[in-house]
Amino acid sequence: MKISARNQIRGRIVEVAKGATTAHVRIDIGGGAVITASITNGAVDELKLSQGDEAYAVVKASDVMIAVD
Amino acid sequence: MKISARNQIRGRIVEVAKGATTAHVRIDIGGGAVITASITNGAVDELKLSQGDEAYAVVKASDVMIAVD
Amino acid sequence: MKISARNQIRGRIVEVAKGATTAHVRIDIGGGAVITASITNGAVDELKLSQGDEAYAVVKASDVMIAVD
Amino acid sequence: MKISARNQIRGRIVEVAKGATTAHVRIDIGGGAVITASITNGAVDELKLSQGDEAYAVVKASDVMIAVD
Amino acid sequence: MKISARNQIRGRIVEVAKGATTAHVRIDIGGGAVITASITNGAVDELKLSQGDEAYAVVKASDVMIAVD
Amino acid sequence: MKISARNQIRGRIVEVAKGATTAHVRIDIGGGAVITASITNGAVDELKLSQGDEAYAVVKASDVMIAVD
Repeated sequence: MKISARNQIRGRIVEVAKGATTAHVRIDIGGGAVITASITNGAVDELKLSQGDEAYAVVKASDVMIAVD
Repeated sequence: MKISARNQIRGRIVEVAKGATTAHVRIDIGGGAVITASITNGAVDELKLSQGDEAYAVVKASDVMIAVD
Repeated sequence: MKISARNQIRGRIVEVAKGATTAHVRIDIGGGAVITASITNGAVDELKLSQGDEAYAVVKASDVMIAVD
Repeated sequence: MKISARNQIRGRIVEVAKGATTAHVRIDIGGGAVITASITNGAVDELKLSQGDEAYAVVKASDVMIAVD
Repeated sequence: MKISARNQIRGRIVEVAKGATTAHVRIDIGGGAVITASITNGAVDELKLSQGDEAYAVVKASDVMIAVD
Repeated sequence: MKISARNQIRGRIVEVAKGATTAHVRIDIGGGAVITASITNGAVDELKLSQGDEAYAVVKASDVMIAVD
């Protein structure tokens, strides 16, 4: 499956923390940057996400803001 | 100003393309990854964003999905 | 690629309307329902989306609201 | 109240699962498709959502992505 | 129709600016605050939004961030 | 840091409710309006958000919908 989301950044999962319904998954994308995703516990189970796996952080362009110092 | 968004990734602007109301800004975050943001033309003007500037791509954790091959 | 987004609804593209930077793509998912997506022109080109194609509307669960009459 | 969101899909609630602060509500929209919404527990209470109710899944066009096989 | 979105703030439309596919609508919510919405031109037409109208800015709680100085 | 998000509304925090992974923060923006944000527990801790603090509700324009009666 190919998806329209402009941002698909490869990395490695460094943490999977499940809550009551919502999980936080953290992906190390290199260069010292770690991306945090808040997804459903159901998605974690279905994709069998676990620490050490290669994965992509996927973000729609309209969900990205720009900041400057 | 400090913001709650979990993802604030430093990079350099490589393209600013304005449309009728919506602009696309692309930030090179290193390691071969470029992040595309879709923001208002008004925001581009107010922050005076232009090619070559240092900037951050900012994304709320609830807007990040995870994909696997 | 498998993605964490909980909602991946199959349908057929009935319209692709490009704007200056942002395109609107409409997918007929059957039962009289048509889903409108606002994505970048760049994504339309890269995925070669055109009328009549089979495609999926993909939505993260945290972007879905519920309404009642 | 009429809302600007382009996607308002009628269906029937098949599950309401509350977590600590966030609930997952699933709506059967027919044709074998079920849409999952992640909303606040507070919204579930205020709208008195429960299994079997008719309801709409509401999604802003800018939150819809397109995928192809 | 009642919607699950936690934030429904009443105000008055002070500007409607249409682009090629995407419009910007600005609502004065009082106290010197003006909220900008980026919605489809189609939604502007269907809801017949125009300057001076009373309207609500509607935002899902998961789309709100918090910032501090 | 200056951010592209068009909506940055000043107010005072009236409630911080943490869940398992996700917190709800409510900001009184005056004129009887209270904005609810759903953010990570981690963000609450890092920004040291607590009741009575001045803070901003920050929302990207593409996440705002318009409704009329």
